[in-house]
Amino acid sequence: MKLSQSFTKPLRQAPNDADSANAAFLIQGGYLDQLAAGIYSFLPLGWRVYRKVEQIIREEMDAIGGQELSMPALHPAAPWKASGRWDDKDVQEVMYQFEDHSGKPYGLGWTHEEIIAAIGKQHIQSYKDLPSAVYQIQAKFRNEPRAKSGLLRGREFIMKDLYSFHRDEKDLDTFYDGMIEAYLKIYQRLGLDAWVVEASGGAFTEYSHEFQVFSDAGEDTVYYTDDRKFAQNEEIFEGKVGDKKGSQTVKAGKAIEVGNIFKLGTRFLEAAKVTYLDKDGKRQTPIMASYGIGPSRAMGTIVETSHDDKGIMWPEAVAPYQVHLLDIGKDNAIKKAAEKLYDELGKAGVEVLYDDRDDSAGVKFNDADLLGIPKRVTVSSKTLEKDSVELKQRDSDKTELIPLKDAVNKLSETR
Amino acid sequence: MKLSQSFTKPLRQAPNDADSANAAFLIQGGYLDQLAAGIYSFLPLGWRVYRKVEQIIREEMDAIGGQELSMPALHPAAPWKASGRWDDKDVQEVMYQFEDHSGKPYGLGWTHEEIIAAIGKQHIQSYKDLPSAVYQIQAKFRNEPRAKSGLLRGREFIMKDLYSFHRDEKDLDTFYDGMIEAYLKIYQRLGLDAWVVEASGGAFTEYSHEFQVFSDAGEDTVYYTDDRKFAQNEEIFEGKVGDKKGSQTVKAGKAIEVGNIFKLGTRFLEAAKVTYLDKDGKRQTPIMASYGIGPSRAMGTIVETSHDDKGIMWPEAVAPYQVHLLDIGKDNAIKKAAEKLYDELGKAGVEVLYDDRDDSAGVKFNDADLLGIPKRVTVSSKTLEKDSVELKQRDSDKTELIPLKDAVNKLSETR
Repeated sequence: MKLSQSFTKPLRQAPNDADSANAAFLIQGGYLDQLAAGIYSFLPLGWRVYRKVEQIIREEMDAIGGQELSMPALHPAAPWKASGRWDDKDVQEVMYQFEDHSGKPYGLGWTHEEIIAAIGKQHIQSYKDLPSAVYQIQAKFRNEPRAKSGLLRGREFIMKDLYSFHRDEKDLDTFYDGMIEAYLKIYQRLGLDAWVVEASGGAFTEYSHEFQVFSDAGEDTVYYTDDRKFAQNEEIFEGKVGDKKGSQTVKAGKAIEVGNIFKLGTRFLEAAKVTYLDKDGKRQTPIMASYGIGPSRAMGTIVETSHDDKGIMWPEAVAPYQVHLLDIGKDNAIKKAAEKLYDELGKAGVEVLYDDRDDSAGVKFNDADLLGIPKRVTVSSKTLEKDSVELKQRDSDKTELIPLKDAVNKLSETR
Repeated sequence: MKLSQSFTKPLRQAPNDADSANAAFLIQGGYLDQLAAGIYSFLPLGWRVYRKVEQIIREEMDAIGGQELSMPALHPAAPWKASGRWDDKDVQEVMYQFEDHSGKPYGLGWTHEEIIAAIGKQHIQSYKDLPSAVYQIQAKFRNEPRAKSGLLRGREFIMKDLYSFHRDEKDLDTFYDGMIEAYLKIYQRLGLDAWVVEASGGAFTEYSHEFQVFSDAGEDTVYYTDDRKFAQNEEIFEGKVGDKKGSQTVKAGKAIEVGNIFKLGTRFLEAAKVTYLDKDGKRQTPIMASYGIGPSRAMGTIVETSHDDKGIMWPEAVAPYQVHLLDIGKDNAIKKAAEKLYDELGKAGVEVLYDDRDDSAGVKFNDADLLGIPKRVTVSSKTLEKDSVELKQRDSDKTELIPLKDAVNKLSETR
């Protein structure tokens, strides 16, 4: 993509009212547009990043046997009444609820246990239908009084939610442990150092598990030991900083919750009257668990944990482009060399953003730092004198000259 | 995918209350689940079809230079008030409008002119930023009193909406004509015979254009001549069936609207105060057009126009799988041959649904007809006697025997 042809260009200044690094850099960079507090558009550059995050999550959910589907956002009240959550005060606090013209009540989905249970009633009939796991990646809504921190706490956001169904606890436990591994693999691919943290479990199980990334931008407090053998959310931690766990000392840190998984037992399936015939011909209720990751929040968390004061530093796996090419100087030979390299890199399958604008070196370098694409490649009269281009990694101050003839090969390598 | 491991299996009977072929077959086949009137879940099988439809649309929008983004579904009232549509009675008729806990008004997006205009205000500054075209593929909502006909008229549905911005009418006209071609290419790839139909144009232009597929399931009436040189929606047609257009006679037919495109002029951009500096340094308002296709409605239309009384007949390009493999008989050799073919086809990159259930030939053949996958491949003792499998196309009664050793090659060919 040539920046001259991009629908967005980096803005000359950061938004006044950004309350977080991710909002400030993503808006100024042209990744996002803020429509209202907690409500964002993903602009083309941001949508490229988002889709890469989404695809990593999809691949890992497919790898563990998840089948992708898509449930609606607009929910009639009935299934929520059946589970008892429609009139639950805590639920009403977060769920947009309203009526259509005929007075029928609807809500906007902030989670989908009730909906997947209603589908399960149609399609789970026999022990042969179990276990199964389905997931979706889709917009969710929260009537959020304190929307803030850019993509971290929104009124509309994107979630991957997977639901698994099992004949018995042993089968659930095996799958659940596999999901912990799948989640850790996702975070690793996203460049996030996520911790598995115990959280409150509800009626069916002692603990649920959250995935937390330490960051001062986080809203949660996690108590942990350095060996990672102990980590609990403040909701359940009984003790204080400095307590001993064996040889380890309990510490506390701010963290961003980037995922959570929860064993639900039969609660939602009983409410929806989902049963299956077991091998002996007896009716049983399956047990269920749910597993959430917000790809949009994960994207915000990547920015929070991977930036400097000039802008973002995207990990390769989610960067909107791999190479940020720019030319400096109006000499025709410079433009020509940059255009040629742009074409050749494109043919070699390298994703390139080419800043071909008539702007100064200062503007172009600043925008490159802001956008945070991993490799910056500069063509100028100085580099052309040596038949070379200059390569700089976003996260390093070193530059190196690469002969033009080697540039495509060199830039096609993943680092 | 082995049907035994699929989250859904075809249901034994059609839903009682289906009011259309697409709803009946898609629900019975396990492609969709109905949550409420006009609100459906796409189950894994249906989501495979949907994603293929979506990808065809995406490819053609990218080919014409569209840049993909994603705008929110939850809209504050402000931009809609600025355009005058928030309080418009016709708009209130179709837009879900409600308040959050603090009393702030929100609506659910049924179109996004106001939102893209607000984004344009940030990112369209100079004549160099024009022309541009952006699109999204995303859930939309209509407070629809008469939701009906399955995927054809829903309360929640998926839309591709593209918005283009131009310096002048000439540039708009060129792009608009290109979009007509792009749309016709999409329909052709989807196996839909869409007509370009004139419809009412509003203040800026005499006509807008709809894309209509003739079908008795349609709600619209289109007046047309057989040479396709004349086609108008009933809203604007002045005349009657039997009128002459040159040597051609005007006919009328029911049709499903599968897309529409509309020149909007400056209306929404003026309301949002979007201006650019032209080459002479003067402030100008760009002109704009919008272009919609509903991939979910297109999917329903494919079923309406491509089925028989037994079920769906998917075109190859959007079929959930290319091959429906089934085994008949409990003989171990049959299972073994079918399993082997399933593995080999998978390795050859052929998408196969393998009905490996312990069900009768009758059940399996009926389900194959219902699901509508293009090629049915049967392994039975009869075919194995001849070291063969039986191939039947969904849209033909003829069967042919294919030697097992040629099966992978033969089934890898697109027809």
